[in-house]
Amino acid sequence: MNFFVGDDLKIGIFGQSHAEAIGVVIEGLPAGRRLDLEALAAFLARRAPGRNAWSTPRKEPDAPELLSGLVEGRTCGAPLAFLIRNRDQRSGDYESLKNTPRPGHADYAAQRKYGGFQDARGGGAFSGRMTAPLCIAGGVCLQLLEEQGVSIGAHAAAIAGVEDRPFDPVSLTREQLYAVKANPFPTQDIEKAEEMCKAISLAGQEGDSVGGVIECAALGLPAGLGGPLFGGLEGRISRLVFAVPAVKGVEFGAGFASAGLRGSENNDAFCCDGERVVTRTNRHGGILGGISTGMPLLFRAAVKPTPSIAKEQETVDLSARKAATLSVGGRHDPCIVPRAVPCIEAAAAVALYDAWLDRKKEC
Amino acid sequence: MNFFVGDDLKIGIFGQSHAEAIGVVIEGLPAGRRLDLEALAAFLARRAPGRNAWSTPRKEPDAPELLSGLVEGRTCGAPLAFLIRNRDQRSGDYESLKNTPRPGHADYAAQRKYGGFQDARGGGAFSGRMTAPLCIAGGVCLQLLEEQGVSIGAHAAAIAGVEDRPFDPVSLTREQLYAVKANPFPTQDIEKAEEMCKAISLAGQEGDSVGGVIECAALGLPAGLGGPLFGGLEGRISRLVFAVPAVKGVEFGAGFASAGLRGSENNDAFCCDGERVVTRTNRHGGILGGISTGMPLLFRAAVKPTPSIAKEQETVDLSARKAATLSVGGRHDPCIVPRAVPCIEAAAAVALYDAWLDRKKEC
Amino acid sequence: MNFFVGDDLKIGIFGQSHAEAIGVVIEGLPAGRRLDLEALAAFLARRAPGRNAWSTPRKEPDAPELLSGLVEGRTCGAPLAFLIRNRDQRSGDYESLKNTPRPGHADYAAQRKYGGFQDARGGGAFSGRMTAPLCIAGGVCLQLLEEQGVSIGAHAAAIAGVEDRPFDPVSLTREQLYAVKANPFPTQDIEKAEEMCKAISLAGQEGDSVGGVIECAALGLPAGLGGPLFGGLEGRISRLVFAVPAVKGVEFGAGFASAGLRGSENNDAFCCDGERVVTRTNRHGGILGGISTGMPLLFRAAVKPTPSIAKEQETVDLSARKAATLSVGGRHDPCIVPRAVPCIEAAAAVALYDAWLDRKKEC
Amino acid sequence: MNFFVGDDLKIGIFGQSHAEAIGVVIEGLPAGRRLDLEALAAFLARRAPGRNAWSTPRKEPDAPELLSGLVEGRTCGAPLAFLIRNRDQRSGDYESLKNTPRPGHADYAAQRKYGGFQDARGGGAFSGRMTAPLCIAGGVCLQLLEEQGVSIGAHAAAIAGVEDRPFDPVSLTREQLYAVKANPFPTQDIEKAEEMCKAISLAGQEGDSVGGVIECAALGLPAGLGGPLFGGLEGRISRLVFAVPAVKGVEFGAGFASAGLRGSENNDAFCCDGERVVTRTNRHGGILGGISTGMPLLFRAAVKPTPSIAKEQETVDLSARKAATLSVGGRHDPCIVPRAVPCIEAAAAVALYDAWLDRKKEC
Repeated sequence: MNFFVGDDLKIGIFGQSHAEAIGVVIEGLPAGRRLDLEALAAFLARRAPGRNAWSTPRKEPDAPELLSGLVEGRTCGAPLAFLIRNRDQRSGDYESLKNTPRPGHADYAAQRKYGGFQDARGGGAFSGRMTAPLCIAGGVCLQLLEEQGVSIGAHAAAIAGVEDRPFDPVSLTREQLYAVKANPFPTQDIEKAEEMCKAISLAGQEGDSVGGVIECAALGLPAGLGGPLFGGLEGRISRLVFAVPAVKGVEFGAGFASAGLRGSENNDAFCCDGERVVTRTNRHGGILGGISTGMPLLFRAAVKPTPSIAKEQETVDLSARKAATLSVGGRHDPCIVPRAVPCIEAAAAVALYDAWLDRKKEC
Repeated sequence: MNFFVGDDLKIGIFGQSHAEAIGVVIEGLPAGRRLDLEALAAFLARRAPGRNAWSTPRKEPDAPELLSGLVEGRTCGAPLAFLIRNRDQRSGDYESLKNTPRPGHADYAAQRKYGGFQDARGGGAFSGRMTAPLCIAGGVCLQLLEEQGVSIGAHAAAIAGVEDRPFDPVSLTREQLYAVKANPFPTQDIEKAEEMCKAISLAGQEGDSVGGVIECAALGLPAGLGGPLFGGLEGRISRLVFAVPAVKGVEFGAGFASAGLRGSENNDAFCCDGERVVTRTNRHGGILGGISTGMPLLFRAAVKPTPSIAKEQETVDLSARKAATLSVGGRHDPCIVPRAVPCIEAAAAVALYDAWLDRKKEC
Repeated sequence: MNFFVGDDLKIGIFGQSHAEAIGVVIEGLPAGRRLDLEALAAFLARRAPGRNAWSTPRKEPDAPELLSGLVEGRTCGAPLAFLIRNRDQRSGDYESLKNTPRPGHADYAAQRKYGGFQDARGGGAFSGRMTAPLCIAGGVCLQLLEEQGVSIGAHAAAIAGVEDRPFDPVSLTREQLYAVKANPFPTQDIEKAEEMCKAISLAGQEGDSVGGVIECAALGLPAGLGGPLFGGLEGRISRLVFAVPAVKGVEFGAGFASAGLRGSENNDAFCCDGERVVTRTNRHGGILGGISTGMPLLFRAAVKPTPSIAKEQETVDLSARKAATLSVGGRHDPCIVPRAVPCIEAAAAVALYDAWLDRKKEC
Repeated sequence: MNFFVGDDLKIGIFGQSHAEAIGVVIEGLPAGRRLDLEALAAFLARRAPGRNAWSTPRKEPDAPELLSGLVEGRTCGAPLAFLIRNRDQRSGDYESLKNTPRPGHADYAAQRKYGGFQDARGGGAFSGRMTAPLCIAGGVCLQLLEEQGVSIGAHAAAIAGVEDRPFDPVSLTREQLYAVKANPFPTQDIEKAEEMCKAISLAGQEGDSVGGVIECAALGLPAGLGGPLFGGLEGRISRLVFAVPAVKGVEFGAGFASAGLRGSENNDAFCCDGERVVTRTNRHGGILGGISTGMPLLFRAAVKPTPSIAKEQETVDLSARKAATLSVGGRHDPCIVPRAVPCIEAAAAVALYDAWLDRKKEC
């Protein structure tokens, strides 16, 4: 299934970029949980475009409308359902997409999967806009996890080669996570944000785009979430994170770097911190055997450069089966990393809250 | 769910390292498909331990016994079920695991998840041995995919810093995949195999271990498999690949490297190759929008160094809540990458055959 | 899961009787299928209240708004999503529901399940109104099945002891199914409809209600849909049919009557009808071994009398834990059977189209 | 999916009547639960054939072999897996099944579903023998439910028109359930058992068979299990009960009889029983709105007469497409109701334990 996901928490997303609406249905939440819709809107605002200089000038208020599932601010056992109306559509920009697929985009693959019946307007169901309903689901889960003492936050670890200071894998604090969320640009170091913004602007001016890496952390997770084999947190989180378009890689803890270490260098020694059992280092990224260890859960996601660029590119005219060129017009972020940061948080939150519900059955 | 996975193809794995048996049930296969059990056994032999100098001396014949699902060599619509008896068990090696968790292993996390009731003998359900049933399921899918013209193969792209020649993302051939499978050590370059073996032996002699990177390819995939959001091939493959213990990262195509490129560098231009539409380069790794493009599907998995090492490590005595040390005895591979190569192929095959079945409903 | 269902076709329903809206998301439909929204609205009108003398005077236009999934009248691979706004709410009628549960209703059970946080207004998620989104999903599936030559229809086989002429299990025709759909009251015999209406009116005048039996048929099903064990059509259809509130029994073919027959009386002899293999009789109701045989699929559902009655009933005051009495005010159908007829058709259609998609993978 | 079922508890069944083995994998059980394997074997003995005069003389010890999931008698978090070897196979009895389908059996439908590749030996995956793994899963769930104070029992409510005294829907006791289980023939009244046995013997002597009705009860269920729509207990139980071959109808509480009652007659008045809220009568069968009310859960399943009869029956020769006759040889129970009684208990137990696990997430 493409639009539905989850084991204990079920998420069903619907919509296309230029359909009447997009939205999400969230089933499986316990009843009686408070939900703060303003906080949810504030979370969604972090992924909304048009907020500042480096972002696309399109205005998408993306204010979600609650359709069901809450009574007097509390979950009632029926699914939460949210709707976002689509507006400011310029279908004309996209008309020839079916015939001359954009490099780096889903156009050609979707054409082959759906036999030409896919909604090509604005990227259809492949549009980055589809991360808005994912963020609604994630925003809900973030609140429910926060209520349990779990905080999730991410930052732009790198953009266009400029690297932000990484999260400290052992001593990262909630305050540090909250600080990044409060920043206009999602880095730990303000100076790095400036450098990144410059690099993004430069690329945009040149009709090009840049990518980056997002690092995400979950603090306060109890030990014992997840499981072996297909229930492992790495696999569960990855399935959600790869739902964010443009993500091409995911690594946990030391990740690819651990491949070059020796076991004696990579293993994290256990030690006692008062009554708690912790590890001195955290190359395992808070997950061993697919299960949370109680240490900060840490992962990084690679985001490719925005495929929509003004520069001329080679493609094919599908009907004539001959070479063609194409320059992607319209308004596009030269870098989606900043807006993808809350999407990655949302993806992690959905996966972790699903694992949280699963754990309740164990007891 | 931890042991069950799949949307259209359902896989249910059972067993623990020192239980009576391990095995797998595979449901959802079309009826009437031929299965070559000898070829399956040959595939499983590639992951079996004890085959050569660099591997653990334990003998695990791991010959799977077919319990059901085949009639005269063809699938009959009922699930395939396979069993592998456990033997050569030395439970004594593992007795104190529950109280002094091994660094880098699931011991502590499992203790917390299962409240001490987990099977700690030999790693229980977290043992690398659990990849045998995954390989049975994968071996079946590999045959069914091969019948459809899809070939999957992997190699040790790097071990202990020694790098094998990477797969050519555009011109990789089936013959090259088959050649790696036929090699005693899974590399493209024989010389690199020798270097890797030396590095592994050296680490083992020093009571230590090494990790590496596995690169996997699927050739012959038609365009159109997978889907947007949660149906994307990256997420589906990752969920399976992370089921292989010790995998800490997965990247598709250019992966993390694409994060440092510009859009104009990362996008792959479309062009015509006779009637086929292809891309000149293949940084997208054969997947766009979560859907196969018809180009070689390529991904890399980071494998951490074997956590079981003879060197003394710090841990805690859980009952006394005080520091302790531990040296992992028993017989362990100083590098699991070579044996993990067929596991990664298996994981990819299960994910891709599941996507294959899904696609049949589209038509 | 309560609001999500389906194996290959996924249905996610949301809403409560007095929430902002109710609706449904339908995922897994092939792309490129035409959908006739007017025909869908006409189907939904058959379950809408307020159409005639015997029904509640509430006006619920229940016109579904399409949110996504169609492009130029054809499915595009993204989920269909529909919304129905809730109106004409008189919350006041239901205020004391939580404290004095209505006999025959979900009030008390829901109170216990959701700890008092359920939406009690108008029955919340337990309202018969929740069958509207089920009918949308079913109406879509009915169209897609009709396109494949499968017709589904039902009638009020009995109401208040008045019995309609049953469907002929062997020679039932599509024309007969369509004729019932066209009738203002869903019977085969017009005279029986009149008798039933009288019985309903009489019960209503006496502050009481009546129940009945709905018989449903699917014609044109190919042999080979469904499967053994949990994939059997009986179980799949039942899970959907019991989603319609007030259904308390389901039987296929001769059903409970077959329990009193001998094997020689109950078995249906196979014979040839030209090239087709058919059975002379059809006590098996078109299903053997959980799989369609190609004969008419026939089942009956028992619908209990509307629990909402004006007559005084005994209940308890939950907060005081003492006896109380209650008379259910508001406007309620003294018999829901006529409006439940399309709901049963919808339930069957969803189950059968799901089985249809599953079968495509077999080939 | 045909062989896999369950939301929170996952069951995967494998095997065919004449395959090497049949068995079951049970995933999702909490760790640390004691399991009494002798009690499980005793439960399975109730469905085993060859126990007495009225049953088939085949000897199927059906002693299940535990493969995994238990450590020192307690669940360990890994799936339970059980195996039953097939023996005493007389494949020759069944050779012509594919060409001359037996009336009342799955032969023809399976032929069409699987294109002739199904395992026809002994009914293959459609054999009543496949209820043995279902009973293993159910037997495990029965123990886990009993531990929570929930008892499930069934009896032969009717066979060949002879009716046993029904369960008292309000005052049924555990002792009464246990008494039926202890009886050699599963009735409440011993005299009725004798009458039934005579009727069965008579039918068998005449080369014929008889059917019946099984009534099942669950006592001690807390209020609050299940849910609206697709999570309703009626639908969940039905899906499992219809997995038992030969079941053609299921009704809850007053079931089909309620269709003929008025609301004032059918509604069950709530009243206080000390601190408990109960109903004076129990026509609702312990379920309202799909959710348990705390009253005895009661349902009845219609079992058709054994389709395998010695009497000559009409069928078709599929290859010649012409009429043929057939007399089913081999050894078959002239009535499967007694052996189906524990199967129905098992089906109910699996559905209810699944709902039990789901409920834990609500809190």
